Amino acid sequence: MTAAPARLATYRALARQLRVDSIRCSTAAGSGHPTSSLSAADLMAVLLAGHLRYDFARPDHPANDHLIFSKGHASPLVYAMFRAAGAIDDAELMTYRRKGSRLEGHPSPVLPWVDVATGALGQGFPIAVGIAWAGKRVLDAPYHVWALLGDSETAEGSVWEAFDRAGYERLANLTAIVDVNRLGQRGPTELEWDTDAYAQRIEAFGWEVLAIDGHDLDAIDEALASAREADRPMAIVARTLKGKGVSLVEDREGWHGKALKPDEAEKALDELGREPSRTFEVAKPPEWSRPSFARRTFEPPAIGEAAATRKGYGEGLAALGRARQDVVVLDAEVSNSTHSEDFKKEFPERFFECYIAEQQMVAAAVGMQVVGLTPFASTFAAFLTRAYDFIRMAAVSRADIRLSGSHAGVSIGEDGPSQMALEDLAMMRAVHGSTVLYPCDAGQTAKLVAEMADRRGIVYIRTTREKTPVIYHAKETFAIGGSKVVRGGGSDDKVAVVAAGITVHEAIKAAEELAKGGIKVRVIDAYTVKPIDAAALAGAAKATGGRFVVVEDHWAEGGLGDAVLAALAEAGVRDVRYRHLAVREMPASGKPAELLHAAGISARHIVDAARDLLP
Amino acid sequence: MTAAPARLATYRALARQLRVDSIRCSTAAGSGHPTSSLSAADLMAVLLAGHLRYDFARPDHPANDHLIFSKGHASPLVYAMFRAAGAIDDAELMTYRRKGSRLEGHPSPVLPWVDVATGALGQGFPIAVGIAWAGKRVLDAPYHVWALLGDSETAEGSVWEAFDRAGYERLANLTAIVDVNRLGQRGPTELEWDTDAYAQRIEAFGWEVLAIDGHDLDAIDEALASAREADRPMAIVARTLKGKGVSLVEDREGWHGKALKPDEAEKALDELGREPSRTFEVAKPPEWSRPSFARRTFEPPAIGEAAATRKGYGEGLAALGRARQDVVVLDAEVSNSTHSEDFKKEFPERFFECYIAEQQMVAAAVGMQVVGLTPFASTFAAFLTRAYDFIRMAAVSRADIRLSGSHAGVSIGEDGPSQMALEDLAMMRAVHGSTVLYPCDAGQTAKLVAEMADRRGIVYIRTTREKTPVIYHAKETFAIGGSKVVRGGGSDDKVAVVAAGITVHEAIKAAEELAKGGIKVRVIDAYTVKPIDAAALAGAAKATGGRFVVVEDHWAEGGLGDAVLAALAEAGVRDVRYRHLAVREMPASGKPAELLHAAGISARHIVDAARDLLP
Repeated sequence: MTAAPARLATYRALARQLRVDSIRCSTAAGSGHPTSSLSAADLMAVLLAGHLRYDFARPDHPANDHLIFSKGHASPLVYAMFRAAGAIDDAELMTYRRKGSRLEGHPSPVLPWVDVATGALGQGFPIAVGIAWAGKRVLDAPYHVWALLGDSETAEGSVWEAFDRAGYERLANLTAIVDVNRLGQRGPTELEWDTDAYAQRIEAFGWEVLAIDGHDLDAIDEALASAREADRPMAIVARTLKGKGVSLVEDREGWHGKALKPDEAEKALDELGREPSRTFEVAKPPEWSRPSFARRTFEPPAIGEAAATRKGYGEGLAALGRARQDVVVLDAEVSNSTHSEDFKKEFPERFFECYIAEQQMVAAAVGMQVVGLTPFASTFAAFLTRAYDFIRMAAVSRADIRLSGSHAGVSIGEDGPSQMALEDLAMMRAVHGSTVLYPCDAGQTAKLVAEMADRRGIVYIRTTREKTPVIYHAKETFAIGGSKVVRGGGSDDKVAVVAAGITVHEAIKAAEELAKGGIKVRVIDAYTVKPIDAAALAGAAKATGGRFVVVEDHWAEGGLGDAVLAALAEAGVRDVRYRHLAVREMPASGKPAELLHAAGISARHIVDAARDLLP
Repeated sequence: MTAAPARLATYRALARQLRVDSIRCSTAAGSGHPTSSLSAADLMAVLLAGHLRYDFARPDHPANDHLIFSKGHASPLVYAMFRAAGAIDDAELMTYRRKGSRLEGHPSPVLPWVDVATGALGQGFPIAVGIAWAGKRVLDAPYHVWALLGDSETAEGSVWEAFDRAGYERLANLTAIVDVNRLGQRGPTELEWDTDAYAQRIEAFGWEVLAIDGHDLDAIDEALASAREADRPMAIVARTLKGKGVSLVEDREGWHGKALKPDEAEKALDELGREPSRTFEVAKPPEWSRPSFARRTFEPPAIGEAAATRKGYGEGLAALGRARQDVVVLDAEVSNSTHSEDFKKEFPERFFECYIAEQQMVAAAVGMQVVGLTPFASTFAAFLTRAYDFIRMAAVSRADIRLSGSHAGVSIGEDGPSQMALEDLAMMRAVHGSTVLYPCDAGQTAKLVAEMADRRGIVYIRTTREKTPVIYHAKETFAIGGSKVVRGGGSDDKVAVVAAGITVHEAIKAAEELAKGGIKVRVIDAYTVKPIDAAALAGAAKATGGRFVVVEDHWAEGGLGDAVLAALAEAGVRDVRYRHLAVREMPASGKPAELLHAAGISARHIVDAARDLLP
């Protein structure tokens, strides 16, 4: 089957224009990746003019296809597409990479037609998997998801997590277009033009694969048509030339991430042919609305006796699932440990098993919030470190996702340091706009889960493996940003102990011990580590003359202690007397209580530190 | 070919003992993963008694094979192997998971026969690739590397990065043994017993694959023999039963990570047969010594004019390469940006291209230090977030590795936030025992590179994209843990500005501006962010009455500001007046100077903040 001549002529004209505009905007900017744009221009021209269904006037149309530039450095190309679709005008195109422009060096959702930020390779594609998965499983949506990948980025393991997930779930609404232009940043890629090797690998992960010449408009047209019709995900492995169409740079090394100089660009435009850029028609999506998600009041679970906060998380999630149909839950094959299984048992259709692929899990969560769902993703807190690049980029994507990390700190006991999160508070505090929660009581945890649902940005909750006593009344409420004074609170408190999670219980024991000696201690449950309750800290400073013990089951750097000091300094509280109890030596295995003690963060150490601070 | 009956009998006896001891030690501990140990007991019995060449009395023997339990939760099995090899006695075996025992919940190098810590899945295997790569490329070593993988962990993308790397490099000295026991933590794995699917995938990545019955001792024997002889890496995909040999748990769900109760264990031992555990013979490695690496004095490169610190890193590395033959360099396909290419050009044989696979890069570095090399690994600092779990675990492994992250902060300019590291200082500070360096001058950077070589633990250096002025004399020296006063220094300084990297230059401009108004400012170049120079900070506090401006091209959390406050608090410095200039809004694209200004961390903002603090 060959495309009609008129159709082909349109593709050809659009491809030419995409090349020209990619060069024009990057040359004007003086930087960018024109050659990586040129290799994929034919692929994207055929997609835009022949297969994409997208209403650029209504970027929030729920039936719009999704186009994810996983190779985000080809931003000149995607912006040229927006210009060709009439979404932006030529003047805006020429603001590329300038201060104040929406056209950033790599695409980000400051543009309404961009779902997520890309530019860290190997991320857009796993996010596309999440969008497709939600479309198939939860929404029954008519949209198709198209991901443009670079060949270099297939070196990222996350790409294979994505191929695996989509292949296993038979996400027929997903197409991966791999631009095999043979050249990476500093020279040839590993597989160069061995499209058979790509095909063999991708097929082995359960995909249908078509290997084509990525500059043959007819072949592209046919491939994209069959991709939409396929009954499983399809990859189009397209052999291309980097810099295609401009002899100065075509298939040449040394031209990655480099704009043509103005005189070079002029010659390139001569070569490509000069015609004024124009608007091309793009097919509209069908009329379709997302299912409306019922909501009712959240009823917190009743947790009467000692329970682990991770169990509170699970029960809170299940209760939230009852209250809100937009809530979806992902887990990395440890749902019986994180207790997200409590949700899964009630709402299996809204539970997404990601197996042990934390990067794909976070990416899928990002994808699901693109299409209006409210995702919660959980694993051991230690293993969220695996997905830190994805979490960082989720913030650049302005994504609203909720992460739960269980098994925090040395208090997990016998499993040893590989399973102990001791850096997660630091990692999560240093995410732009993040919220970091660390409750100490299972009922409190369940209530905070409900608060997380409407919180913008990256919201993290840290939970504990061990059972902890119930310290809050069933009617107590917890706002994000708040804290609770759980012992003391009078103006005659001598020392403030700031704790969170497991150490709150140690602090209470310490306060009771000190009370026997007539020493009044204010114990603050800093269940919001970020934004920390600065007012409560300032109040405690006033009462105690600035005497603080901070105790945390975390390395000394970047966690609760740093948060407290920063808040006090920011609030202008001077004259602080400070003792910081944190984990400072590599832990080993042992019983939880033994390890808390060995790390110097048990009640005994709090008592000593508080005494040490007394006037 | 069938193994001789005596050989088979030995295997059988050893396999039985490994099963028994796996159960005994985990039941005594009351926790652990006996069923994951039982599935691989036959594989490991044949390996230990028939194929491994390892002198357990000389764990530092350079020709010893390397055995990496990538499925680290099967620790009862590896400890039972050590007991069978006579490396530990029965009494020690029974201390498993107790406080003070070397036999931690997951293996770690507190035991001399363990190369690296495992327990975070998908890490041991990529590290094994590093050991094999060094053995082939640098050492020409006779050792063979055996990695035992679980089937669940093949969901981790890092495992495919490792298959890719080893396949591409044809590491014939590496064997992956995949224990396909069908059951993950909370139920069946994705591929269950589809060993064909495993084989197809692994073959597509350039490996030879043998699929066998993992309980057929003869088949295992033959597979391991051919693995050592293969001319490329071989994977043995072994179909096994989780809990094999104990009917209570064999192939049963709900038994992951669960010890048998004492009465259940008694029945299991009855079923397996009761014989006293004994010592088995293990083949010794051939006599062989590592090549000795020549060393001469490090001659720092002459850097006369403005240059980027990333360039200082590259030139420093090349100079270090001249001084020390044990130095090896890895990069994730951006060596022309990180400037590790300066080393590569001179020492291509000691340069390891990892393509865009940051996890594999860090894992390979960990592997290379196992065999006595001194690895430096570099990429954009933002993309080191991709490998955070590996960096965290490298600390648990007590590994000595050096990481360089380039393109830090908003000062990279036009490429935008996806490429800007703004969380790396927080991330790296929160690694146990880490060192964090952040120089501001290319010559200083080169000298610090030399200091990094002998530093223990995880040593990180953060570099800048833009050229910065030379501010230090060619003869200046820089110790890790130190800082430099680059403006002011007298007892009449009114304010201290603590800066690092790009902001040092802004601080100098600010100090010069303030000097015009007669205001003396002490500018501290805190080139060691961890361990920060607490004495210099205390001294500055004394001179200035505790007036500090901290300015950093990093998010406000977890970086230089938090480090300074923590050091002052720790040192008992009270009465601190503090202004913190850091990145607080999501940056976009723009020119470096524009972005520094927009983020509020330029000279102008430092001047304002300093003025604000004046008495």
